[in-house]
Amino acid sequence: MSTANAYAAPSAHDALTPTTIERREVGPRDVAIDIKYCGICHSDIHHCRGEWGDVPYPAVPGHEIAGVVSAVGAEVRKHAVGDRVGVGCMVNSCGECANCLKGDEQYCIPGNTQTYGSVDRDGTITRGGYSSHVVVDEAFVLRIPDGLELDVAAPLLCAGITTYSPLRHWEAGPGRQVAVVGLGGLGHMAVKLASAMGAEVTVLSQTLSKQEDGLRMGAAAYHATSDPATFEQLANRFDLIINTVSAEIDISAFLGLLATDGALVNVGAPSAPLPVAVFSLLLHRRSFAGSAIGSIAETQEMLDFCAEHGIAPEIETISADQINDAWERVMQSDVRYRFVIDSSTLG
Amino acid sequence: MSTANAYAAPSAHDALTPTTIERREVGPRDVAIDIKYCGICHSDIHHCRGEWGDVPYPAVPGHEIAGVVSAVGAEVRKHAVGDRVGVGCMVNSCGECANCLKGDEQYCIPGNTQTYGSVDRDGTITRGGYSSHVVVDEAFVLRIPDGLELDVAAPLLCAGITTYSPLRHWEAGPGRQVAVVGLGGLGHMAVKLASAMGAEVTVLSQTLSKQEDGLRMGAAAYHATSDPATFEQLANRFDLIINTVSAEIDISAFLGLLATDGALVNVGAPSAPLPVAVFSLLLHRRSFAGSAIGSIAETQEMLDFCAEHGIAPEIETISADQINDAWERVMQSDVRYRFVIDSSTLG
Repeated sequence: MSTANAYAAPSAHDALTPTTIERREVGPRDVAIDIKYCGICHSDIHHCRGEWGDVPYPAVPGHEIAGVVSAVGAEVRKHAVGDRVGVGCMVNSCGECANCLKGDEQYCIPGNTQTYGSVDRDGTITRGGYSSHVVVDEAFVLRIPDGLELDVAAPLLCAGITTYSPLRHWEAGPGRQVAVVGLGGLGHMAVKLASAMGAEVTVLSQTLSKQEDGLRMGAAAYHATSDPATFEQLANRFDLIINTVSAEIDISAFLGLLATDGALVNVGAPSAPLPVAVFSLLLHRRSFAGSAIGSIAETQEMLDFCAEHGIAPEIETISADQINDAWERVMQSDVRYRFVIDSSTLG
Repeated sequence: MSTANAYAAPSAHDALTPTTIERREVGPRDVAIDIKYCGICHSDIHHCRGEWGDVPYPAVPGHEIAGVVSAVGAEVRKHAVGDRVGVGCMVNSCGECANCLKGDEQYCIPGNTQTYGSVDRDGTITRGGYSSHVVVDEAFVLRIPDGLELDVAAPLLCAGITTYSPLRHWEAGPGRQVAVVGLGGLGHMAVKLASAMGAEVTVLSQTLSKQEDGLRMGAAAYHATSDPATFEQLANRFDLIINTVSAEIDISAFLGLLATDGALVNVGAPSAPLPVAVFSLLLHRRSFAGSAIGSIAETQEMLDFCAEHGIAPEIETISADQINDAWERVMQSDVRYRFVIDSSTLG
């Protein structure tokens, strides 16, 4: 056992406060990681506030972890002390179901072990990356390629893979029209990734306030969804729409922007069901789909892709005592485009 | 011009009555067809009662047409006098859009010309198959293979292709688990077709009242959706669910029955939007999709497939004066499994 410094939510309603937590001994297949940076994801807030179900408090969130290996178990082969590594949204899975066997651990049928708030295989509750170090099974530890700094690598472990995976699955690439709804943490990664894959990218945002950024990131066009003309002008246009907005939007209106056989893919989920006009689906054999993070192999592929193409999130680095303020700003969409905690400030 | 006997709805609220309508001269690329049988589709009722938008009355419905060629235009190459032929839901399309050019006339971007209630290229309103004969562009006339009787061929032109197309598109076949929601006119065709394609088919119906029929048609299993245990027992089971029910059902519950990467495909549409729980989509990268009829080439393929595999709808043949009673029974789901009008009784 070892003691880590951490920031934890004591309840659904209290601010996060500094604390210490226990990490397990480094087992034969475990990797101990000194965390250098951890991104702030909107999911951290939903989780800690109990908006997605019961939470075993105190809750230590954080699933965009980048750091350096400090120790490895005797059987570890993938990583060595001193390696630059990352951990994303999951730290284990059953390893035996049809999905795990084909390398889709993110869709583990009994359910994978999330980086925070899950029951781990030893019965303890997992605690995430708002902390100084973590111990993780080597199979769920990613290699961060040389071309990527650790601070910008951190948000790739969730915001990066969550957008990369559906872009690959629904074949974003040359000759394909891709729209990204929302230009936040996930949206700005979707724009950069889809553009690097060769697709023609359009941003659909409530207003034009971030238009300059969107075009700089690689979008070919930028439209305000507050303008009804957008929905007429772009009807039947897109092969793929990635919706990064978790708030309730008029899905049926966005479905009308899909070309024949097009897919609108949600990567976030509002808590209430969304009304879908079925005629919009029928008319052009359109689909409304969802996608959750990506597999471990695909996450490695994404990191390598980002290093190769010089893609990085745009970040604002904060110290641990700024976490609560940062959360407020995330909820007001006042961040361009991802907060990253400098873990050396955890004390 | 020629005069055809027909049954027409004079308004949204009146019963259908016998009348006569004019058919255009047989143009160079036209085929004149003596209609022998016409299926009754629930869409006929929705349309004539104005439930899907404004209707140019009097309305002559019917888009499951089977008959014999009585005359052809000078440039017609596909069909000859005496041929056994069929006409489905569309009688023309723009021929120039991206979808028409790739042979997906059903998704014609400016919109195809429906067999009834559409504005035809000559400005007249199309009138459907509840009539003694019809004149149609040869490109939209199907060949009925020798192995199929005309009475059972008729419902294939809508109920058959509407289910065949999504089964092919979403790859029903050996090793695939396919569920069919609803065992009516479309549902019973979906069961027969999916089973002939080699998929393992499960019927999901409100009650077990038609279980014997479903199993006889090729289903391997039959479950009542009124029993909550069905949704636990079959969770994550199906690669494809074809929903033939136009009434509002709990789509989110059915999405939970899909395996990873599975698709729930609606082939009918309720008029009100359906609430969709997005988490159900995210968890296993599921899709909620729609599909509308099929292309002309695919419709021919379906007719040939049915002849080859000895597949036919189960029909109840009626005379024209029974049409209004048959409509009442369709609305009460009291038909096993499709009404077909004997067109010789039109007078």
